[in-house]
Amino acid sequence: MNFSSDNTTPMSPSILTAIGEANKGFQSSYGSDDYSSQLQEAFSTLFEREVHVFLTNTGTAANSLALSALVRPYESILCSQEAHVFTDECGAPELYTGGSQLITVDGAFGKINPKALERQIEISEAIRPHKQKPGCVSITQATEAGTVYSVEEIQTIAQCCREHNLPLHMDGARFANALVSLGVSPSELTWKSGVDVLTFGATKNGAMCAEAVIFFNPTYAEDFDYLHKRSGQLMSKMRFFSCQFLAYLENDLWIENAQHANAMAISLASAFNRNQTPIINPVQANEVFVSLPAKVASYLEEQGAGFYSWGHVDECMYRFVTTWCTTEKEIIAFESLLEKALKS
Amino acid sequence: MNFSSDNTTPMSPSILTAIGEANKGFQSSYGSDDYSSQLQEAFSTLFEREVHVFLTNTGTAANSLALSALVRPYESILCSQEAHVFTDECGAPELYTGGSQLITVDGAFGKINPKALERQIEISEAIRPHKQKPGCVSITQATEAGTVYSVEEIQTIAQCCREHNLPLHMDGARFANALVSLGVSPSELTWKSGVDVLTFGATKNGAMCAEAVIFFNPTYAEDFDYLHKRSGQLMSKMRFFSCQFLAYLENDLWIENAQHANAMAISLASAFNRNQTPIINPVQANEVFVSLPAKVASYLEEQGAGFYSWGHVDECMYRFVTTWCTTEKEIIAFESLLEKALKS
Amino acid sequence: MNFSSDNTTPMSPSILTAIGEANKGFQSSYGSDDYSSQLQEAFSTLFEREVHVFLTNTGTAANSLALSALVRPYESILCSQEAHVFTDECGAPELYTGGSQLITVDGAFGKINPKALERQIEISEAIRPHKQKPGCVSITQATEAGTVYSVEEIQTIAQCCREHNLPLHMDGARFANALVSLGVSPSELTWKSGVDVLTFGATKNGAMCAEAVIFFNPTYAEDFDYLHKRSGQLMSKMRFFSCQFLAYLENDLWIENAQHANAMAISLASAFNRNQTPIINPVQANEVFVSLPAKVASYLEEQGAGFYSWGHVDECMYRFVTTWCTTEKEIIAFESLLEKALKS
Amino acid sequence: MNFSSDNTTPMSPSILTAIGEANKGFQSSYGSDDYSSQLQEAFSTLFEREVHVFLTNTGTAANSLALSALVRPYESILCSQEAHVFTDECGAPELYTGGSQLITVDGAFGKINPKALERQIEISEAIRPHKQKPGCVSITQATEAGTVYSVEEIQTIAQCCREHNLPLHMDGARFANALVSLGVSPSELTWKSGVDVLTFGATKNGAMCAEAVIFFNPTYAEDFDYLHKRSGQLMSKMRFFSCQFLAYLENDLWIENAQHANAMAISLASAFNRNQTPIINPVQANEVFVSLPAKVASYLEEQGAGFYSWGHVDECMYRFVTTWCTTEKEIIAFESLLEKALKS
Repeated sequence: MNFSSDNTTPMSPSILTAIGEANKGFQSSYGSDDYSSQLQEAFSTLFEREVHVFLTNTGTAANSLALSALVRPYESILCSQEAHVFTDECGAPELYTGGSQLITVDGAFGKINPKALERQIEISEAIRPHKQKPGCVSITQATEAGTVYSVEEIQTIAQCCREHNLPLHMDGARFANALVSLGVSPSELTWKSGVDVLTFGATKNGAMCAEAVIFFNPTYAEDFDYLHKRSGQLMSKMRFFSCQFLAYLENDLWIENAQHANAMAISLASAFNRNQTPIINPVQANEVFVSLPAKVASYLEEQGAGFYSWGHVDECMYRFVTTWCTTEKEIIAFESLLEKALKS
Repeated sequence: MNFSSDNTTPMSPSILTAIGEANKGFQSSYGSDDYSSQLQEAFSTLFEREVHVFLTNTGTAANSLALSALVRPYESILCSQEAHVFTDECGAPELYTGGSQLITVDGAFGKINPKALERQIEISEAIRPHKQKPGCVSITQATEAGTVYSVEEIQTIAQCCREHNLPLHMDGARFANALVSLGVSPSELTWKSGVDVLTFGATKNGAMCAEAVIFFNPTYAEDFDYLHKRSGQLMSKMRFFSCQFLAYLENDLWIENAQHANAMAISLASAFNRNQTPIINPVQANEVFVSLPAKVASYLEEQGAGFYSWGHVDECMYRFVTTWCTTEKEIIAFESLLEKALKS
Repeated sequence: MNFSSDNTTPMSPSILTAIGEANKGFQSSYGSDDYSSQLQEAFSTLFEREVHVFLTNTGTAANSLALSALVRPYESILCSQEAHVFTDECGAPELYTGGSQLITVDGAFGKINPKALERQIEISEAIRPHKQKPGCVSITQATEAGTVYSVEEIQTIAQCCREHNLPLHMDGARFANALVSLGVSPSELTWKSGVDVLTFGATKNGAMCAEAVIFFNPTYAEDFDYLHKRSGQLMSKMRFFSCQFLAYLENDLWIENAQHANAMAISLASAFNRNQTPIINPVQANEVFVSLPAKVASYLEEQGAGFYSWGHVDECMYRFVTTWCTTEKEIIAFESLLEKALKS
Repeated sequence: MNFSSDNTTPMSPSILTAIGEANKGFQSSYGSDDYSSQLQEAFSTLFEREVHVFLTNTGTAANSLALSALVRPYESILCSQEAHVFTDECGAPELYTGGSQLITVDGAFGKINPKALERQIEISEAIRPHKQKPGCVSITQATEAGTVYSVEEIQTIAQCCREHNLPLHMDGARFANALVSLGVSPSELTWKSGVDVLTFGATKNGAMCAEAVIFFNPTYAEDFDYLHKRSGQLMSKMRFFSCQFLAYLENDLWIENAQHANAMAISLASAFNRNQTPIINPVQANEVFVSLPAKVASYLEEQGAGFYSWGHVDECMYRFVTTWCTTEKEIIAFESLLEKALKS
């Protein structure tokens, strides 16, 4: 009953196989290998246009690097106050960008509200140069609240970006979960809706260690090889990272993994519903946020259920994450534990 | 006949096996897994004292992170002008440290001369605060010139460091090659000789992707978890990186790989000697630097030999790297090619 | 009727005289002059203990430099969401500190609430190392809302700082206004209440260009000469800045100027009161914040009254600043204008 | 007999007068005052084209800010190894630019050699992205060695810059001294010869505290107000800095001051020549570098002569600076002291 994080899962067997197959003979280093070339093509095919792809070892690095291509140090990054870049990256965006300020924009369920965005931009511009220049907007898809922006919502934000000449970044650490939730194509969810650069995560959804920065707008990619190297992210044996993505995309492994994880979240939410446990956010991807009495939460943990408390400890809010490994059996077991916990 | 770089090699089979074995079930993320705990112990045993270990995905990140724990942004890093941190990391040390200046110290064969070091420190201190405060010393073992500092040489530099209250960093991207070259123990080569922090590389010598920052002085490790996370280097599925190191150390795989690579370098150097090709630096690890007429170099490349030109192109200096994969057969084939090239 | 900013005032005549007197013969550069030595003593006398003083040309530089001595780049600065460092310094704190995050703490009237501070620290510490380490607390005295922390309020915040081992910074751009408002001594308002470093502003209150960073805790001052130089703030002809402070402190010029400015604020507030204009914040220093219909504000501006709109334009909030130059006559004239504006 | 530094001088009387005259009534803050507007025009007239001017309080800040507008953090700044930005600014260029590396280019007498520049650019570009991208070139006029680039020399360097698409920065801390030495116009010495941005210093040559960043290429000035503010350099009472420059340019005060200082250097050099003291660099501005036995130097200092040792102390190299305040009488007195010193 491990619902603590999608980062605790192993990798999908076919990705391990791919690593083994890539382990043959010499390959040029620093991304000049065959696998990395193939990957550029695979991603271009996937997104139905030429894209520029750079790999990193963590989502934090991918986000921060992407942002560093979009903003200058005197510019700000507008994001939700629940954005991973704002709450959980220990200053990596500030480091990579040279000191940009992350300015939070109000909104519900982990999203940013377009009107609040417009207002925040105006406030900054009104006191130029005393406040940082708005530099870009960053949205998270799926959000850290387990919700998903609709295509229309993205387009509305992108429209505001265009009017203010701001590039739009999408943190897609759980891009696959959002994609299958909406049932749209990768291109519809990104550049066709106005996204300029995407952080495309695979680690949480079945890879060993594979995160990509994908540029739809080639302008931002121009000098990115320098930023990539300068951040210590240009891996010498890049083949072992590119091959993971190739296997991830092959035969829609990524789609299947995400579909399973999302289905398990629905299943888990039903279990909570059946037990009158308040679900805080709409369940649209692979995360379920609930309110639980502190005692109940403690009991569940003692009995071996893995999950995290969310926000300040006295808020009694808890996050449950389902993954490509989660089984129906686990959920059934958890539900019976929950019943016991609530009774006692 | 690939002598271009130790980064073009595959990983040792037992490391691939270890990755496969680590791919079982859930493991806590961000370094709280079993493999990472074992690794702390394994390294402490190896170095005969308690050490603090943090993993990264590149040597550039490992070096830059290590340095960021040693210096403040207004301090300088004293290193050889051939140091990788100075020549080949595209500003990563400057990024991670917040703008420290790398100040080069004279010396032969990729090493820094202790007297030149002393002088450089004095020059800086004389004009406080107009020049950065000397902040640490960084040496490379084996050096970028394919040479190795003797234990005595390290101790002399460490003595100078102590007198000026400067920590000593060792870039050990090719630590194994230096170790087997000298025939000393890991502790003798490091903390017993005055090294405070070591960048311990495994990628070039048989791993897939595994670099470690090892602190012998616990003071510098105190807040390093923040620096590690902030740089985007705290990998979520850390088990897959820790397990590489465990396999690397087990049964002295790392020692065997390095011994082989070094032996191949001696063998290659002999081939050059037999053909009157001037060898520029003493061959003490797994690299051979030679002078070749530009035409000869071109011919060799056309015939499929892989190696790099070094420095400015008109200097006609070339680097040949041998690895754990290099075979005697390759060297024999190369020698006969060289003979042909020199004749024509 | 200029109530736009205390930065629009000339300098006090005696400060101009002091500059003229300092303009004689050679003086050592970079702060080794006689005036700068005297200033160290003058400030030590004023604060009843040995202090370390460094001068800058702007309050932004003084704040950012002070903070850069207190926090490492992976640490956060806890401050009010109305703090100048958060809202109006265009990333200078982020630049000087190497990317620290400014985290806002709730509170009323421009102050931070000690309980909210405690909570914010706990939230950060709970997810180490994913969130920046709390690094220091910064309060503004007088606040940007024209209010003043009582000595007890400062002590409560300082107590929380001590418990978490965090240094306390005070942005005293309007320190004089706060001091005379409370009627306490400089030492009581600072180190005796737990302040470690003070940004002591004089420019707004009668100087030409003179801001100081004053360290009560010598530890933080140890390498500050490097930070000072590195930021481009070590002025070559420092005598001309030190002499301003000497004249500022002499014969209590600073006290008199601040008393006058504060008295004018009370007088202006009375004028608003007499005209039923809602005053938003308690008037405790030299600023008055009011709500005005947009039309009234426009009329006042057209008729030559100088003041600023505050926050987003549709909030209809306005700031009026009184200074050492403001006259009763101006306030009388303004009141009659206000009456007209409200009638029309 | 103070030849230690031009920073030890007072300000010219007419500049003090200008400050007094500017001290009347209210003026808009942050550079929106009348004096600052006039200054934009005055500089545009002086340089015979529209320029964009921003003031700072130190030459270090002016240089670092100018460079921060020209390079991205992953780019390098190519300069002489005697450049002030490389040797004496304690990391300010690294801070302001976000970590650019200063790469030194060989050359004699404090200048950079155009061929060495070309070579350094090629070396960097050959290993993209492992070495920083060449980002701009910075030359010092007059140099730190007391020499002056001819117009032709500047044009040759600018030509190389254009070919590699690199902007050209001129550090003109002693611009006036170079200008009068060459007898050319400000425009000929700068934009007509290919300079994109100039650090125009006045402090050393008669101002109290006045340094300017002057953009000839408006592209670089576009967002410079943000960089200016972010660095803590946007002074609130800017009038007091703009008025210094107005007085500095008026009636050619700056030209007269520099002519005097340069003439005094020639006079001092003659004194050294008459005493067989080796002069190290050509005397082309207001500095004289000589070799002196350590004992002689000590004697001179004991007898009250002010000057600095240059480089490492055992090199016995000394710098003598003449200024707008230096008198013939001082030089005569110094010569007689020198005679005594050499005899004993």
